[in-house]
Amino acid sequence: MSGIIEVFGHGGDVETAASRFGGSPEDFLDFSANINPLGPPKDVLKALEQGMRAILRYPDPAHRTFKSLLGERLGLSEEHISIGNGAAESMALILLGLSPRKVGTVEPGFSEYRSLSKQFGAEMHHVLGQEELEWRAAPEDIERLMEQVDLLFLGQPNNPNGVQYPVEVLQRLARHAEKTDTVLVIDEAFMDFIPETQRQSLASRLQDYPQVIIIRSMTKFYAIPGLRLGYAIARPDLIRAMTEKQVTWSVNGLALIAGEACLSSGEAFERETLKQVALEREKLASGLEACGCEVIRGEANFLLARVPRPWTAATIQAALGERGILIRSCAMYPGLGERHIRLAVKDAKSNLRLVNEMRSVSGQTNPVPTVGGAE
Amino acid sequence: MSGIIEVFGHGGDVETAASRFGGSPEDFLDFSANINPLGPPKDVLKALEQGMRAILRYPDPAHRTFKSLLGERLGLSEEHISIGNGAAESMALILLGLSPRKVGTVEPGFSEYRSLSKQFGAEMHHVLGQEELEWRAAPEDIERLMEQVDLLFLGQPNNPNGVQYPVEVLQRLARHAEKTDTVLVIDEAFMDFIPETQRQSLASRLQDYPQVIIIRSMTKFYAIPGLRLGYAIARPDLIRAMTEKQVTWSVNGLALIAGEACLSSGEAFERETLKQVALEREKLASGLEACGCEVIRGEANFLLARVPRPWTAATIQAALGERGILIRSCAMYPGLGERHIRLAVKDAKSNLRLVNEMRSVSGQTNPVPTVGGAE
Repeated sequence: MSGIIEVFGHGGDVETAASRFGGSPEDFLDFSANINPLGPPKDVLKALEQGMRAILRYPDPAHRTFKSLLGERLGLSEEHISIGNGAAESMALILLGLSPRKVGTVEPGFSEYRSLSKQFGAEMHHVLGQEELEWRAAPEDIERLMEQVDLLFLGQPNNPNGVQYPVEVLQRLARHAEKTDTVLVIDEAFMDFIPETQRQSLASRLQDYPQVIIIRSMTKFYAIPGLRLGYAIARPDLIRAMTEKQVTWSVNGLALIAGEACLSSGEAFERETLKQVALEREKLASGLEACGCEVIRGEANFLLARVPRPWTAATIQAALGERGILIRSCAMYPGLGERHIRLAVKDAKSNLRLVNEMRSVSGQTNPVPTVGGAE
Repeated sequence: MSGIIEVFGHGGDVETAASRFGGSPEDFLDFSANINPLGPPKDVLKALEQGMRAILRYPDPAHRTFKSLLGERLGLSEEHISIGNGAAESMALILLGLSPRKVGTVEPGFSEYRSLSKQFGAEMHHVLGQEELEWRAAPEDIERLMEQVDLLFLGQPNNPNGVQYPVEVLQRLARHAEKTDTVLVIDEAFMDFIPETQRQSLASRLQDYPQVIIIRSMTKFYAIPGLRLGYAIARPDLIRAMTEKQVTWSVNGLALIAGEACLSSGEAFERETLKQVALEREKLASGLEACGCEVIRGEANFLLARVPRPWTAATIQAALGERGILIRSCAMYPGLGERHIRLAVKDAKSNLRLVNEMRSVSGQTNPVPTVGGAE
């Protein structure tokens, strides 16, 4: 095993961090997983406490109560909705249900698009984002990719750069998808972190874009990644194809209870989250820039940054790891370089600690050697 | 939707029962799901309470702590173990990982063997159990089936009849599996309910039977079906094929915490469960026989019974359903008839109530009409 801690290709792996840097997994200040810094709504914790008896029963295999609440919230009938054991299961069900021979991705992007597609036997194609477009790909490049593939994944806002495509581009791509008979999967896992008026989404006009599947996650905004809950919305025959591949009871009973509570938890939590994330993102970005980082001013609850030379993602990750702070190296994202890192926007105190440690570390002229060897 | 409540082909669906018979899902006395009547070990509930913060973090995608404890318990190195989001995911991973073209089942058996196999594109073959063998199939019939299929599912003890094949038969089948190059999947989901000295299992001699995969469930014996946790043990290359198809984080964080606590919960819970289940199973069987039922004297925590004429599974299910008791109709199991039902062994008070209601209901000479039409 190499020195990198992204053994599983993801952030949030505090167990690997602990085994590499020492300490216990709970002690790490984790900037590598993009979870709402407010934590779950209080109502959700209360619902879980009161609903703990749900572990004694099989979960509802049809997710009826949650799906019905979600349908109301989205203004969609239930035949347009598939509930997943995390957004990752929703992606897997799309791949299993539609069996695309060729899958396209826009890089840099969420690594699960590639790994799940390969896992289920697809041949991969990709286009690269451009630095001058904040790592978005040019729409015409995405259109050309569509001509080669049966299914395309697009993050909106995209992970790791946190930026959106304008809705006009999405409309153009969705129309092109009809011409090329490509399914366009738009992953809106982080969309809830963007104020409603700034969201660029086709979700409310799904009937006009039959080739589009939108994926959403409940676990990032509502801070319940340990429970797993996501969903997909699309036209009914695509949803049916997904449901046919779902393993019975794959969504656990507590996730359903938490999901129901999330949807009933009211707007105050949402407003407070949006306010805090916007404020803290701005402060974090400025703090990082003051340390010599170049920062993409994304709209989500994380930031893509390039650390100043002579540092690399690996050396800064190691230096911060030894100080009990976990960050995400983005050196392995296609298109990005060895100096790219991704940082979650956390609470004010944590962000300040990160910036201070970053300043102290990056002020050194000789990066400390990476534990286990640099890569 | 017909009058049956096994809409999803399973027991435990109290939501469908409530929508058909009225009342709230929690109010049903549920004999249709086979869960330890003692409930979860106290340590497990405490561990969940104390570990609730695990919902704030991504689960360990490699299930390291649980897998290591399980390996110790089983005396197996971790390369022999695959952890699943319920035993159902373990079955799905076997099918996805090994892609058998033809799959065999012994009927009556757990319906997921068939439905998952079809879901993932296999052609199904089966042999029927024989009434005089308590619905076991003759070993030579199973051997002949192996000659036709790439993979065979066998329940041990089998659901719904609760009986085991002697270990000599398993050995014979496992050897035959090598000749026919068939993977023999032995589902031991209910094995923990059988006292160790009476278990007929190849688990401790897996190295001698390379074609065998054993599946186990943590959710039935430890009464946590809402959380989902199961596992498979087999030779390393089969385990790797399964892991390659697993969706990242499919096993949720609370299931892992509960699983770790289950394995540390000590033998008292296990002893008490075995004692209670054996005692109550005997009393329940006698009570049912006194009501005119024929009962298969299985070894697990459930009983297969045939209700006396003029009752059928459907009419007795409806009559008991209206009294707030949920039982499993087995009329749809291949090989069984319209009078077969399956009953979980629950606590003394619940079992007594069932037998009393059964006596009162079956004493009537005209079965009440099934709500929503008999089938």
